[in-house]
Amino acid sequence: MSVNLPAVSKCAVLTAFNEPLSVREYPMPAELGSGELLVAVELAGICGTDVHLQRGELNVPLPLVLGHETAGRVAAVGGDDPRDWLGNPLAVGDRVSFTVGRTCRHCRYCRVYRRPSRCLNRTAYGVNLTAARPPHLLGGYGEYHFLYADTAVFRLPDDLPSEAVVGAGCALVTAVHGFENLRMQWAESVVIQGSGPVGLAALALAKEAGARPLIVIGGPRERLERCLRFGADLVIDIEEVPDPAKRRQMVLDATGGLGADVVVECVGMPQAVAEGWELCRDGAKYLVLGHYGDAGTTALNPHVITRKELTILGAWGSEPQHWTVALEFLRTRRDRYPFDELITHRVGLGEVNEALDAVARWQTGKAVVCPNG
Amino acid sequence: MSVNLPAVSKCAVLTAFNEPLSVREYPMPAELGSGELLVAVELAGICGTDVHLQRGELNVPLPLVLGHETAGRVAAVGGDDPRDWLGNPLAVGDRVSFTVGRTCRHCRYCRVYRRPSRCLNRTAYGVNLTAARPPHLLGGYGEYHFLYADTAVFRLPDDLPSEAVVGAGCALVTAVHGFENLRMQWAESVVIQGSGPVGLAALALAKEAGARPLIVIGGPRERLERCLRFGADLVIDIEEVPDPAKRRQMVLDATGGLGADVVVECVGMPQAVAEGWELCRDGAKYLVLGHYGDAGTTALNPHVITRKELTILGAWGSEPQHWTVALEFLRTRRDRYPFDELITHRVGLGEVNEALDAVARWQTGKAVVCPNG
Amino acid sequence: MSVNLPAVSKCAVLTAFNEPLSVREYPMPAELGSGELLVAVELAGICGTDVHLQRGELNVPLPLVLGHETAGRVAAVGGDDPRDWLGNPLAVGDRVSFTVGRTCRHCRYCRVYRRPSRCLNRTAYGVNLTAARPPHLLGGYGEYHFLYADTAVFRLPDDLPSEAVVGAGCALVTAVHGFENLRMQWAESVVIQGSGPVGLAALALAKEAGARPLIVIGGPRERLERCLRFGADLVIDIEEVPDPAKRRQMVLDATGGLGADVVVECVGMPQAVAEGWELCRDGAKYLVLGHYGDAGTTALNPHVITRKELTILGAWGSEPQHWTVALEFLRTRRDRYPFDELITHRVGLGEVNEALDAVARWQTGKAVVCPNG
Amino acid sequence: MSVNLPAVSKCAVLTAFNEPLSVREYPMPAELGSGELLVAVELAGICGTDVHLQRGELNVPLPLVLGHETAGRVAAVGGDDPRDWLGNPLAVGDRVSFTVGRTCRHCRYCRVYRRPSRCLNRTAYGVNLTAARPPHLLGGYGEYHFLYADTAVFRLPDDLPSEAVVGAGCALVTAVHGFENLRMQWAESVVIQGSGPVGLAALALAKEAGARPLIVIGGPRERLERCLRFGADLVIDIEEVPDPAKRRQMVLDATGGLGADVVVECVGMPQAVAEGWELCRDGAKYLVLGHYGDAGTTALNPHVITRKELTILGAWGSEPQHWTVALEFLRTRRDRYPFDELITHRVGLGEVNEALDAVARWQTGKAVVCPNG
Repeated sequence: MSVNLPAVSKCAVLTAFNEPLSVREYPMPAELGSGELLVAVELAGICGTDVHLQRGELNVPLPLVLGHETAGRVAAVGGDDPRDWLGNPLAVGDRVSFTVGRTCRHCRYCRVYRRPSRCLNRTAYGVNLTAARPPHLLGGYGEYHFLYADTAVFRLPDDLPSEAVVGAGCALVTAVHGFENLRMQWAESVVIQGSGPVGLAALALAKEAGARPLIVIGGPRERLERCLRFGADLVIDIEEVPDPAKRRQMVLDATGGLGADVVVECVGMPQAVAEGWELCRDGAKYLVLGHYGDAGTTALNPHVITRKELTILGAWGSEPQHWTVALEFLRTRRDRYPFDELITHRVGLGEVNEALDAVARWQTGKAVVCPNG
Repeated sequence: MSVNLPAVSKCAVLTAFNEPLSVREYPMPAELGSGELLVAVELAGICGTDVHLQRGELNVPLPLVLGHETAGRVAAVGGDDPRDWLGNPLAVGDRVSFTVGRTCRHCRYCRVYRRPSRCLNRTAYGVNLTAARPPHLLGGYGEYHFLYADTAVFRLPDDLPSEAVVGAGCALVTAVHGFENLRMQWAESVVIQGSGPVGLAALALAKEAGARPLIVIGGPRERLERCLRFGADLVIDIEEVPDPAKRRQMVLDATGGLGADVVVECVGMPQAVAEGWELCRDGAKYLVLGHYGDAGTTALNPHVITRKELTILGAWGSEPQHWTVALEFLRTRRDRYPFDELITHRVGLGEVNEALDAVARWQTGKAVVCPNG
Repeated sequence: MSVNLPAVSKCAVLTAFNEPLSVREYPMPAELGSGELLVAVELAGICGTDVHLQRGELNVPLPLVLGHETAGRVAAVGGDDPRDWLGNPLAVGDRVSFTVGRTCRHCRYCRVYRRPSRCLNRTAYGVNLTAARPPHLLGGYGEYHFLYADTAVFRLPDDLPSEAVVGAGCALVTAVHGFENLRMQWAESVVIQGSGPVGLAALALAKEAGARPLIVIGGPRERLERCLRFGADLVIDIEEVPDPAKRRQMVLDATGGLGADVVVECVGMPQAVAEGWELCRDGAKYLVLGHYGDAGTTALNPHVITRKELTILGAWGSEPQHWTVALEFLRTRRDRYPFDELITHRVGLGEVNEALDAVARWQTGKAVVCPNG
Repeated sequence: MSVNLPAVSKCAVLTAFNEPLSVREYPMPAELGSGELLVAVELAGICGTDVHLQRGELNVPLPLVLGHETAGRVAAVGGDDPRDWLGNPLAVGDRVSFTVGRTCRHCRYCRVYRRPSRCLNRTAYGVNLTAARPPHLLGGYGEYHFLYADTAVFRLPDDLPSEAVVGAGCALVTAVHGFENLRMQWAESVVIQGSGPVGLAALALAKEAGARPLIVIGGPRERLERCLRFGADLVIDIEEVPDPAKRRQMVLDATGGLGADVVVECVGMPQAVAEGWELCRDGAKYLVLGHYGDAGTTALNPHVITRKELTILGAWGSEPQHWTVALEFLRTRRDRYPFDELITHRVGLGEVNEALDAVARWQTGKAVVCPNG
C-alpha cells in the first residue's frame, strides 16, 4: 500500500431507508490481495436507481455506500502484475472505470447458459454490497473505492474523458447489450420510445448502425432537441402529440405506411409496450430495454405477436465485453454523440442529498458526485 | 377438360351468417387456363375457424364455399405441362393437397421483406374468395375444387394417406413455420401450453428436435393421453392442477429449478402468455403460436421480458416450403405421430351443419367432409 | 408507344468472340405488353466481365448487346399502371436503373430454398440474352433498352445521380448481399483484401457498420489513396510490402496481435484466400466476395478452418432488396463515399472498343458508354 | 485423504518419442486443495492422437502420462463441498468423467470473444501437462488421475455406462460443438464424409436432428454397416466407388439433383474438402469437423464458395456445456446409438504398447486401458 494514502475514506452512506445519506469515515483496507485495487473516485454518477434505493424500494443491505457508475484513478494495487480486464498493465495513477456487477462463475447461467448477466449470485457495487464489514468501500459515493480481484476494470485511454464515461453511465452498456441481439442491418427504420439516458444511448447506436429514418418519441422538448443533435431524423413530442393514434400515424407516414423495422422501448412504463407493438411493421423486432425496474402490468394483446410475426427481445444489464464496445464508441464518436454534455450537476459528498432530490424531481441532466473535490 | 366430368359441382355454401350452410350446385369451369387445376375433393377438414366464419366473426364475402384443409384427386388440368410446386408432373388421378393462401408477389411483404405469410393482398380458399362469381368452386366443402395457377399444389406420395394430411391440418404447417424460427438444439427443455391440434403438432416437432424433458400443460385427459403417446415426458392436467403457481412449480421441478429453455403457446387464450413467461428460464425462447384469432388483451408485465432476457417470437400461417417439411414429416414419422387417428367424424355434404355444430361444441377430434362419399 | 420514338435503336453488338463490337441498328418493339418498359440509356457501365465476354471466356449466345450496369430514362411504358419494384408509379421521363438478372420463380432455388440469386434459369441482360430475336434491345450498350415485365426496376430519386449508380455498379449490390450475411457488429476489426470496385464497396459498407480498425490491402497507390478518403484506417500497399508474412504482421499489430474479426476477399485471385485465412483471428468471419469468376484452384489448408473455428461465407450477385439498400446508401452517404468520382471515361457507341481495351489494360477508373451522347 | 489409498500410482508414461511407454510409479498427492479430486481410473480411451503424440508429431513435454478420454471413480476429494460442473455434490465412489482441456479465463478468447475452446493458455490432461512435477498424475493411463479445481467434472448417472462415454470419446463432444453452429432444421439432407469415430458421432447427431436423407461416404464395409445400424439411409463405400464423380452422382441422385443441404467433413484428409464442396447444393452449409490435425494443403477453388454461396464452418474441441448435451445423448439414446459397442480392445497398463500399435494399424474399433484391471 502506498504510504501516501489516508487511513480513512469519507463516504456518503445510506443508513436507513427514506432518510438522508450520512457522510461517514471507514477505515482503508490494511493491505490488498493479488488483483485487488483501491481507486480514488473522480466521478460517481447519481442514477435514478439510487433514488429507488434510498426509498427502500429494493431489498438491499444497510449501511450501503451508493454509487454504481464510477470513474477514478488507481490509488493502490495488490499483487505483482496488476492488469485490467483486457490485459493492459495497471499502475497507480491510471484512470479507470469498471463493471458494477460481479458474477459467480459457478451457477448455471454463468456456466451452462453462457449468460452471466443473469448470474444467480450476482453482487453489485453500490447496490447489494453492504459497508457494514470490511472492505467497507464498496460504492462510488466515497473518496476511495475498493475493487475485488474479479472486477472487470478498464483502463481509460487519455482521449476518453471520465465525464463521457459517467455521462453515458449504465445506459450505454445496457444499450450495447440490447443492440447486440438486434443485429441491425443498414437502412432499417428505427423508432426509439423515450428520450432519457437509455433512449439517447439507443439512438446513438441505431444511428451508427445506419438507421433511416431514425425516429424518437419522447419529451420534454430540450431532450428532443438533443436527440436531433444526436442524429434523429424525426422527433415526436408526447406533449404536443398526446394521442397515440396520431403518433402511430406519424410513424407510418415516415416508414412507407407499414411501420418500423425496429422499435426500441426505452421508457420504462408498461403502456409504452402496447403502443410500441403498434409501431412495428409485420416481421419487426421489438427490444424491451427500458424495463429494468418492475413497473407492473399493462394490457397487451398476444394476437399482435402472432399476426405481426414479431420478434421481441429483452436484455438485462451488461457483460464486460459490452464495455469494450461502449468505451471505444465514446472515445471515437465523441464528436457526434457528446455524452459528457449530459452532466449538469457536480456536487461534493456533503451535497449528495440535495443532488438526489434534484434527480428525484427530474431537474437534472446527469448529476455526479465528486468525492475528492 | 375431361369428357367424364359432370356439368355441375355440389357445394356446401355459407349464404348468410348464423344460418346453416346450404348445398348448392355451381357450374364447372368451361375450360382451364395454363396451370389451373380441378380437384375432386376427397377430404375437407372442418376447422374451428369455420365455426367463426359461420358466426360472422370475420368479415368475409358471401356466398362462400367453406373448407381450407383439403385433399383430393386431380380431375382436370390446364396447359401442356402441369406440375406441382416442387416441379413434379401432375396428371389426372394424382392425389394432391395445397396451400390455402395465395400471395400477390408484388407488395412489400412479398418483395422487400421476403415475408409472404404477411402478404398485403393475400387470398385464401374457403375464407375470402366468394362463390358469387366464376370459378365459384373456391373452397373444400364441395365435390370439386378449382385451383388457380398460382396455388402451391403438392402431389401426395402413395405412402402418405390423405387422412394424415387433413388430420394434421393447418396446425402442423403453422407449427413448422414457428419452429423454423425457434431453431431448437438437441436436449433443450420444452413446455407446450395446450394439447389441441396446434399443441399436438408442436409437441411432435419438439420431440423430433430432441426436447428433454418435453412437458405439456393442457387437457382434457384424453388429449393428454395422446400427448403421452406422442412422446411427452410429463403432462400437467389443468383440471387436476388448476393453480398456475403449482403448475409452475411442477415445471421448475422438471427443469432443474430454473424453468424451461423453450415454451410454446398453443392455447389461444391471452392469459396463457402471462403464465408462459413464468415458465421460462432466463434467456428462454417463447413462441406465440396459438393466437391466430384475436382474443383480446391480458395483463402482462414487460419487466419480465427485460429481466429474463426473453426472446418472444410469433409466426403466422405458413409458406409453401413449410408444407414440404410437414408432408415429409407426416410420411416418414407416421408411426410415431399418427395424425390420421385424430379424425373422429366423416360426413357427407348434407351433414355438414351437424358436423359444424359438433365442432362448435368441442365434441370431435377432427371432423372431415367427404363430398364425394 | 410514344409517337416520338425512332423506328430503330443503335447498339454496340458482340457478333463474334475476340472481335471488335459492331454498331448495328435493331428495330424498336412494335408495342409493349403490360409492365414492359423501353428505356433510353443514359449510362452503361463497362465492367471487367464485358472483357471476358468479348474474349469468349463465358459460353454466351451471339449476337449480344453487352452492358449490365445501366441507368436511363423511361421512354415508353406498357400497360395502364406501370410501377417500379417498390410500387412507385413510373412515367415516361423518369430516371431508372434495374437489376440485370431475372429469375424464374419456379425452380427449387427460387421456391424451396428462397435463394433466387442461384435461380437455375436465371437470365441476365447484357450477358445471356441474345439480340438475335425480338425484342433485340437486351443490353446497356444501345440507345434503347427493352425491359421485360418481371424486371426489378427502380425509379431513381432526384438527389441520386445516375453517375453514382453506374459508378458503384454491380460491385455495391454484391457487397450489400455479402454483408447481409456478415451481420457485423460495431467495433469489429475488418480487413478488406483488394482495393478495386468490390473492395471499395466493401470498405464503404464496413465503415458504415462501425469497423475499427478498417484495413485495406491492395494497390496501386492511387486506389489506396481513395480508400483512405473513403475512411480506411490503414492501407497496406502490396507493391511496397510484397511479403505476405510482413502484411500479416502489420494486420496483427493493428488488431491487438490476434488477427481481424472480419476479413473480406475482394481480389478474385485464389491465393488471396490462403493469405486471408491467416489474417483472421480465431472465430473470425471470412467473406469470399471477389470470386465471381472462376480463377482456378490454390493450395488451402482445411486444418486452419477447424483450428481457427472460421466461418467462411460466399455471396453471388444480388437480389432486388439489396438494390433498395444500395440506392439509399448512394443517395444519403454520397458525401462520404463519392462513387460517382470513380467514372474516368465516357464514350459514345462508336468508341466502345477503345474503352473496352482500356478496361482490359486496367487504365480506367470506371468507363461508361453514353449511347445517346 | 482417505487412509485406504496407496502411496503410489502406477502409470504408463511416454518418456521418449518413438519409444514404447514405460510403466512407472508416481507418488500420490499428499493432500488435496479445495475442489481438487483424485480419480481411480476405470477406462482410458486410446485415441489416434495418442499415436501421433508417441511419434513426437506434436511438441509436448515429457515425461507424459497419456490418456485424454477418461472415466473413473472419485477416490478422494478436497474441500468441504465438492461439486461437479453442474453443481451436483460429489462423493468418494461417484463415477465421473471430465473435460480434458482447462482454460485460463483471462485471455481475449476466454473473455472478450467468449470462445474458450481457443483459449491462448489452454492446458490438456494427457497432452501438454508433464508428469515431471507434482501432482504427476495428469493423464488417463494410470491407476489414479489428479484433477485441478478448475476441471469441468461430470458425475455420471447410473444408467450411463462408462463404456458409452469412453466409446464415444472426444469425437462426440466435438461433433456436438460443430452441430451447435450448423443449427440444422428437420428434413435437411445431410452427407457425412467419413465413417470413423467422428463421422459416426456426426451421423448420430444428424439423424436425431431429422436428416433425410442421411448419407455416409466412407469405409471399410464393417464401419458402413454400423452406419446403417445407426440410421444412415445410404452408405457409399469408397472402395467400391473410388471415382469421386460417381460418388457425387450418387449424392445428386439421392438429393433431388442439386446436392445436399449440409455436408460434414469427418475424414481429416484435405482432399475430402474439395470433394465435399461438390456435394453441396448452392446455399449449403459445410462443416469441417475432421481436421483436428494439420494434414497439409490441397487444391481448392474459392470460386465455388462464391458461386455456391456456401457457409463453411469450423469447430475445435469442445466446451463443458457440449459435454452436458453429449452425456444426455448417450444416456437417453443409447438404444439407437450404442457407442459402447465400439470398444473392441481392453488392456491393462502393461499391454498399452501393443494396444497403441493396434490403433496405429487401424486394427481396433475403440481400444481402452483399464489401469485398475
